[in-house]
Amino acid sequence: MGRLIDFDLPQNNILSNVAGGGASNDNPLDPEEFRRQGHMVIDFIADYYKNIEKYPVLSQVEPGYLKKRLPTSAPMNPESIETILGDVQDHIVPGITHWQSPNYFAYFPSSGSIAGFLGEMLATGFNVVGFNWMSSPAATELESIVMDWLGQMLRLPKSFLFSGNGGGVLQGTTCEAILCTLVAARDRTLRIIGNDNIGKLVVYCSDQTHCAFKKAAQIAGINPDNFRVIPTTLSSSFSMCPKALRNTITTDVEAGVVPIFLLATVGTTSTTAVDPLGPLCDVAKDYGMWVHVDAAYAGSICICPEFRHFIDGVEGADSFSFNAHKWFFTTLDCCCLWVKDPAALTQSLSTDPEYLKNKATESKQVVDYKDWQLALSRRFRSLKLWLVLRSYGVEKLRGFLRSHVKMAKVFQGFVEADNRFEVVVPRNFANVCFRISPSAVMNKTNNGVLGEITNSNDISSPRTKTKMGMVNEVNQKLMESINGSGGIYMTHSVVGGIYLLRFAVGATLTQESHVIEAWNVVKQHAHAILNSIPTTHSQ
Amino acid sequence: MGRLIDFDLPQNNILSNVAGGGASNDNPLDPEEFRRQGHMVIDFIADYYKNIEKYPVLSQVEPGYLKKRLPTSAPMNPESIETILGDVQDHIVPGITHWQSPNYFAYFPSSGSIAGFLGEMLATGFNVVGFNWMSSPAATELESIVMDWLGQMLRLPKSFLFSGNGGGVLQGTTCEAILCTLVAARDRTLRIIGNDNIGKLVVYCSDQTHCAFKKAAQIAGINPDNFRVIPTTLSSSFSMCPKALRNTITTDVEAGVVPIFLLATVGTTSTTAVDPLGPLCDVAKDYGMWVHVDAAYAGSICICPEFRHFIDGVEGADSFSFNAHKWFFTTLDCCCLWVKDPAALTQSLSTDPEYLKNKATESKQVVDYKDWQLALSRRFRSLKLWLVLRSYGVEKLRGFLRSHVKMAKVFQGFVEADNRFEVVVPRNFANVCFRISPSAVMNKTNNGVLGEITNSNDISSPRTKTKMGMVNEVNQKLMESINGSGGIYMTHSVVGGIYLLRFAVGATLTQESHVIEAWNVVKQHAHAILNSIPTTHSQ
Repeated sequence: MGRLIDFDLPQNNILSNVAGGGASNDNPLDPEEFRRQGHMVIDFIADYYKNIEKYPVLSQVEPGYLKKRLPTSAPMNPESIETILGDVQDHIVPGITHWQSPNYFAYFPSSGSIAGFLGEMLATGFNVVGFNWMSSPAATELESIVMDWLGQMLRLPKSFLFSGNGGGVLQGTTCEAILCTLVAARDRTLRIIGNDNIGKLVVYCSDQTHCAFKKAAQIAGINPDNFRVIPTTLSSSFSMCPKALRNTITTDVEAGVVPIFLLATVGTTSTTAVDPLGPLCDVAKDYGMWVHVDAAYAGSICICPEFRHFIDGVEGADSFSFNAHKWFFTTLDCCCLWVKDPAALTQSLSTDPEYLKNKATESKQVVDYKDWQLALSRRFRSLKLWLVLRSYGVEKLRGFLRSHVKMAKVFQGFVEADNRFEVVVPRNFANVCFRISPSAVMNKTNNGVLGEITNSNDISSPRTKTKMGMVNEVNQKLMESINGSGGIYMTHSVVGGIYLLRFAVGATLTQESHVIEAWNVVKQHAHAILNSIPTTHSQ
Repeated sequence: MGRLIDFDLPQNNILSNVAGGGASNDNPLDPEEFRRQGHMVIDFIADYYKNIEKYPVLSQVEPGYLKKRLPTSAPMNPESIETILGDVQDHIVPGITHWQSPNYFAYFPSSGSIAGFLGEMLATGFNVVGFNWMSSPAATELESIVMDWLGQMLRLPKSFLFSGNGGGVLQGTTCEAILCTLVAARDRTLRIIGNDNIGKLVVYCSDQTHCAFKKAAQIAGINPDNFRVIPTTLSSSFSMCPKALRNTITTDVEAGVVPIFLLATVGTTSTTAVDPLGPLCDVAKDYGMWVHVDAAYAGSICICPEFRHFIDGVEGADSFSFNAHKWFFTTLDCCCLWVKDPAALTQSLSTDPEYLKNKATESKQVVDYKDWQLALSRRFRSLKLWLVLRSYGVEKLRGFLRSHVKMAKVFQGFVEADNRFEVVVPRNFANVCFRISPSAVMNKTNNGVLGEITNSNDISSPRTKTKMGMVNEVNQKLMESINGSGGIYMTHSVVGGIYLLRFAVGATLTQESHVIEAWNVVKQHAHAILNSIPTTHSQ
């Protein structure tokens, strides 16, 4: 097809001439002014990436800093892009925590890329509101195609793909994906037992499940008393125990309530624990429950054959999601959700007002994604995913992900080789959970009784502390000390009572040199903290 | 504060040198490659805007068009940006409905702008995941500041602003804003009457309320039997009648159910009707209900003093929202929501997992916006709104909006001056609801009996049609004929049984010449359709 399409609008050219051939320079979408300012901002962002290591990774501003710097009301008259960009540099950049920094190892990194950025630019430039097929067919069709591509890359069962009568949809976040599937599961049951019985519905997860699920259940009107949390332990690396799940469900069923939904996780937030999908789905199947697999972080790497086993058993689930904006080089927001039964989603989420009626919808030959998600309006998110897949290709994407795992292994090696530290749980992916070991803390004492820590207001009198509390406090101090330096940024969690530091490799710019340097930073701060614990004699 | 901040990472420079000074060219976020490709895409989009009038506004592709053109799986190896952009032009652009075209008059237009685009670029470039204050203080603080600016521009009561102990938050869409406030209202009541009584809660709207509300109620677990729709009529321009609302509520209360929420609209989707906020809030107040004002479309123009009266009475509401991505030059998605009682939101929506704990949150000196919305992750949306406000300034923004209203008035004048047409409901803003008048259709007949329409498979035998059905069918045919031409794009609605065409001015590039030409297109197609109705004699 040619680049420009002729169509029937005979007087168009004449009128364009009368009107001066297009928008005036004063128009806020004037193409030439767009070009001028667009190039400026590209250079601004390129320079930002070039200089990103010069900023403290974790913003060091105080609450309320920006209010002191900005006017109290919007300007009455226009300001130039030059002025505005100056203010972005002077006032916004200092308040940014630099998620794109190669020294960012916190939470799960959000791996940006050139291709992801360009896809977002194109989507923003077209600025279509793709609620249904007709509002922009390309937006819908590209999404369906790309979701099938990605499903194949993950070797998802065909029943999750459009080609197998399932289907994929791009949500903003995992929170939305969970809420949509939970509502679908809820209504599937309520259609049988009646809306009056909403108070009887029960949902299940583990104590490692992301807080998004509790929130989704709250929003969906699940009685908070019916939110079941299966405890996990260090001995099973914090993965959910199918037997414990079955016991809990059995008790519930005997009590007359109705199990509807299980959230299983591949790669939990705290420690990247993996729930055993196969056995869990077997339990859920016995009770007719919907199983959603949240692989928000770890789903990406399952495109590598050697990691695919982590989602073995997904064939027993009803839905599966991962965040392309987390570890798949696609900028925020972009959550990939597949479902086996799209009708379950659309029965809960579809709307059909007169003002949206159209022949394509009536033909039932098209997907209207508004009926697969919470909101009506939706951006053209598939463009960025398409650009990422094409710009890098499957092999290179696998290579990027493997390089992150390799760097995490390097860091793990440093931790394991230093007897002051320990790895807390086995590393599955590119996140290392570690801490200063209890023995390193205790070695500073005689008989395990700690002395006062000097120069610290944060750590309360050690004499009142348990050993575990003391070790946790030392590690918390380590993390705060590291992050306060601005050099690198890590975050923490507490699992099974253990305070641990998470070293999550995944920022796109990170190279092995950054990991080596990060370890130096960790060692320096740990050295200082351990030395601040004076050796005391037993009382 | 200087542009680059020194901080404590002594070995940084040394290591940077060892590592070759930054990312390699093979890194997917290499700054110089970012610069090269970014400039290319800016030029691509600028050219798109320059040529946008050459494309049919409404995409003319058939369902499944794209699958025939794209491979069945993702490429294994990288493809160049040149190749990809060629495919965007050849395969994506034909499938786009051009929302940014000056000839786009459908739904409500989504008015893009350079400033909005650049703000989105910056947000995408920084790619921070701003769930709480600490994850990027600037993202939170700029949002709070900009929402107060905008609240002042709208002359919202101080109780909606942070400076008055209320506050504003950017949601993705109105759908999300409605769901969040509904859940807050639901839980406010359930905390008093107990979670077991969720089935007793009742919500209210009119038959003109956006379908987003019904969907939100469904998601929030409101029993579908408790969704009350107050009928509206042409005689009151389809606005909600406070007396009818009170009668419905009274009946409900007598029946023992519990009214919790009223959705009032300023600028309904079909006809931009305005519900009388003051009287409706008075009714709601008598029953302790939460009132949300959905001004998704019309809120923007209330920054003009002469339009502010449309939201008079908002002081009695609990929350107010409008879409900056609709008619405020901010690209999708960006819905501005203000609430008087942020604690009502956060009591329903807050989460506090260990892995997100931080000192700033514990200090209670900061806003954590994750607790004001459905999802955890959130983009840095305030940047685009800030850029729009600063790039254009209040006076120019008012001018843009007024120019759209003026163009709608021009179109209205054309309709009124042509006796084949009529304006169906009074125009409030920049949307004209019109149709071929019943008399123009009937004049083609004797005694109001219609003959067969030739050359039409769409219009069934007129002898079986009522007069109103026939008039509606003629107008539907008019709309389909216009949209099929590709020259302009309009959409329809049906209110009070009347099929009407909506001419919504609001695309940023639209100038008066486009409106004049659009009227010519309407007249040409109407002429052809009216001429296809043969005059018949009464039987």
